[in-house]
Amino acid sequence: MLADGFLFTDHYQLTMAQLYFHMGLHERRSQFDYFFRSYPSYGTHQAGYAIAAGLGPLLDWMEDTSFGAEEVTALGKFQTSTGQPEFRSDFLEWLAGAGSFGSVSLWAVPEGRVIHPNTPLTVVEAPLAIAQILETPLLNHLNFASLIASKASRVVEAASGGSVLEFGMRRAPAWGANTASRASLIGGAEASSNVGMSIDLGYESRGTHAHSMVQVFMAIAGGELEAFRAYADLYPDDTTLLVDTVDTLESGVPNAIRVFEELRAKGHEPRGIRLDSGDLAHLSVRTAQMLNVAGFENVKIVLSSQLDELTIWQIRNQILEEASRYDVDPARVLSRLVYGVGSRMVTSEGDSSFDGVYKTVAVEDDRGDWQPAIKISDSPAKIQNPGRKSLWRIYDRRGIATADLVSLNGEEIAAPVTLIHPTQPGVSRTLTEPEISRIEPLLVKVLDGGKRIGDLGGIDQARTRRIADLQQLDPGVRRLVNPHTYHVSITPQLSELKNQMIQSFRA
Amino acid sequence: MLADGFLFTDHYQLTMAQLYFHMGLHERRSQFDYFFRSYPSYGTHQAGYAIAAGLGPLLDWMEDTSFGAEEVTALGKFQTSTGQPEFRSDFLEWLAGAGSFGSVSLWAVPEGRVIHPNTPLTVVEAPLAIAQILETPLLNHLNFASLIASKASRVVEAASGGSVLEFGMRRAPAWGANTASRASLIGGAEASSNVGMSIDLGYESRGTHAHSMVQVFMAIAGGELEAFRAYADLYPDDTTLLVDTVDTLESGVPNAIRVFEELRAKGHEPRGIRLDSGDLAHLSVRTAQMLNVAGFENVKIVLSSQLDELTIWQIRNQILEEASRYDVDPARVLSRLVYGVGSRMVTSEGDSSFDGVYKTVAVEDDRGDWQPAIKISDSPAKIQNPGRKSLWRIYDRRGIATADLVSLNGEEIAAPVTLIHPTQPGVSRTLTEPEISRIEPLLVKVLDGGKRIGDLGGIDQARTRRIADLQQLDPGVRRLVNPHTYHVSITPQLSELKNQMIQSFRA
Repeated sequence: MLADGFLFTDHYQLTMAQLYFHMGLHERRSQFDYFFRSYPSYGTHQAGYAIAAGLGPLLDWMEDTSFGAEEVTALGKFQTSTGQPEFRSDFLEWLAGAGSFGSVSLWAVPEGRVIHPNTPLTVVEAPLAIAQILETPLLNHLNFASLIASKASRVVEAASGGSVLEFGMRRAPAWGANTASRASLIGGAEASSNVGMSIDLGYESRGTHAHSMVQVFMAIAGGELEAFRAYADLYPDDTTLLVDTVDTLESGVPNAIRVFEELRAKGHEPRGIRLDSGDLAHLSVRTAQMLNVAGFENVKIVLSSQLDELTIWQIRNQILEEASRYDVDPARVLSRLVYGVGSRMVTSEGDSSFDGVYKTVAVEDDRGDWQPAIKISDSPAKIQNPGRKSLWRIYDRRGIATADLVSLNGEEIAAPVTLIHPTQPGVSRTLTEPEISRIEPLLVKVLDGGKRIGDLGGIDQARTRRIADLQQLDPGVRRLVNPHTYHVSITPQLSELKNQMIQSFRA
Repeated sequence: MLADGFLFTDHYQLTMAQLYFHMGLHERRSQFDYFFRSYPSYGTHQAGYAIAAGLGPLLDWMEDTSFGAEEVTALGKFQTSTGQPEFRSDFLEWLAGAGSFGSVSLWAVPEGRVIHPNTPLTVVEAPLAIAQILETPLLNHLNFASLIASKASRVVEAASGGSVLEFGMRRAPAWGANTASRASLIGGAEASSNVGMSIDLGYESRGTHAHSMVQVFMAIAGGELEAFRAYADLYPDDTTLLVDTVDTLESGVPNAIRVFEELRAKGHEPRGIRLDSGDLAHLSVRTAQMLNVAGFENVKIVLSSQLDELTIWQIRNQILEEASRYDVDPARVLSRLVYGVGSRMVTSEGDSSFDGVYKTVAVEDDRGDWQPAIKISDSPAKIQNPGRKSLWRIYDRRGIATADLVSLNGEEIAAPVTLIHPTQPGVSRTLTEPEISRIEPLLVKVLDGGKRIGDLGGIDQARTRRIADLQQLDPGVRRLVNPHTYHVSITPQLSELKNQMIQSFRA
């Protein structure tokens, strides 16, 4: 299997790397920025922030990966259209020696942090050929994980404190399922049903039973009641029963209550019921009512079936309207809900790709000086910020993040801070010292010439960072639909460099 | 890493397996069907058929995977809410011995074939606990691969004979990228940019250069022209140049033509230019015009940037309208187009999950007889077909597939064939012998008690099967928008069993 190793990259990275090798440019230091252009937009709703994810597995992969003998042999067989070797032996020999990520220095915004468009989120400094080959695996690792962490964060916000469980493996994108489980946890899911990945991350997976268990009993060993009883017998302190195999209100809930009563008689407390079809809001109210009457006010109601942030929001609103008709306290129904969220979270239904890109921003010239690089576009929003840069977050007096600011490397950012609009140089605002509570550098150096430095912790730290960042984010920006636009600005120095380059370029 | 092994499954599969173990049901033979409920629907457009994919990697994984000591240790640590071991040692010991897929028999519709909803596409017969644990990895492997093969097939159909190249790694779902590359090839893509996976599949990956190469030259070694020249110097017989880094018509195409002329003077023929932004239809026409005037009528025009089946369709239609205004033959422009398709294909933009499910259809009772299982639903379309079944495709006199027919196991299907509507038992039609050219069984036995039997070939055979099946599919069913509904029927015997079970169930 070469597919998981150093050749997990696009073909053109190798043809370009060979060209740099041929030109003697392959070991020139170069800098590339990873950034995204726009928040995910899901059709009827759109994100006002995103969550960084994917860095940890990327770094692990980079550390474990190198270009070996098998790669030499495989690429040595590629032919040009005239039957010549596409990759020459001198280039392959160089790769056999230098083909690893041991020469890479890397700065990144840590996993779990709130991130915004057109800011450098990961900065790579490496020999040109290596930085180029790294483009594809870096984008692959960061884009999908950030997409899912961002979606999960929205689902968790919609759940308003109710637990979110990730149940998406079966329709997740093949082995991307494991990345999705991890990213969902970073985005705030409480646990995942994915056994192997949960264990690898130090978590316990979660789940109870499926319709199939009830069907098996119906076919050969009784029926729904016998299935529930067998389950409760084996898991007396963790009994959550799926009640919609036959008929939720006519069969499932009454059978569950009967088994719950038997459990309680034996000194155990039942945990929950799960609803997996039908009008989940209505069924939640009716189920809560039946459970209350039977004396099971604390049994959780787990909802699943095509959930996402909007369906959860809708379900919660419908419960608020509908509960009183059945003499049930809506707040108490809401507080007992747990959300099992699957396909729509782990595929980011509505917007299934994160538009992160990786662009050359500077290359060392033959005198050893950094030369900024730029890509011009007819659309001002697509003209990238040139040069080696830093990233800052500025908090207002209340401690709320008010802007992310992109500067050139080496700039000291202190009040008063002038914020220039990234595409309209004439538009600016200045924040004075009393208006600023904190100026925080966001990029952390995590690789220095291939060596790990700066321990960012594991997934628990990432989860903590997300919670902290959301608390410091304007509620309008967090809104699920039509969020406020968060300000991303550039410094006067960066703005000047950018304008100079655009002008000299157009001249 | 446990995440890629036997525990690549949902938690509840293990709690159910333990319950079956506890009841002494774990080794009962059971049968599960994999089927999907509806074709992918992408919002403004929807599929009228799907393409089977994912079986090969699933079988490889099943063969390589077993429950070992590491799994015993990890699961042994799981605790119930009262601190007891969740998985008992007798169950874990049994899994340590029996925890593999060596007991599974499996029938499947081969990869590359056209498939339709509510038909058994993969049938698993295995000891109940093992069949249950297999649910998640089976769904994970088959659902995503079939989703992408189906999308790719649509993109390839829209390209009307033009080559489709899969360029999606960077925004593909993490390691699902490799599955997506393979599935895209099954769906008809000519090649992929994914180096490692292409090699593993026996293909050569494809690609040329990115904007970054031009940017690097602009920063330190000249400009676009020098970049193009360096590329052509190294790859003289495979020069395809990306022309939109600066300005497509003002800079990129003229520079490319200059380098093409230099190449030709040295006895080489240029291969292509690539357009990656702007109005691709308009730019194709203008570029074709400029290339024609310069004498490069055969240079390919590679299009990329947010392509999918509808954008390709739109681009081709616009070219048909616009070409004559520039004195260019539209048919010749169309015939030189190549499509580099990325994110939207490898994530199935618009519908990012395939709704395949895996349902218990029969379990052996304590006398060793198969008992059919069913799941009832308020929605007739969601009531599954019970029992052990076979699947047939019936071709009309013209050799066009006219219906897929689901029968019970052991039924002989021969003319005259009565086709019953799957949810409306009163609706039927009968095909007489002269109306039928062929009755084809679709399921092939590929595993017999864990042993591979029946060589289905590799990816080339899958690609061939797709092409053959599409030729035998009604053009109305293949339509990209509002396709005709293909008929899926059941036999009178199956219909009778289903109705009996529904009635006895409701009584």
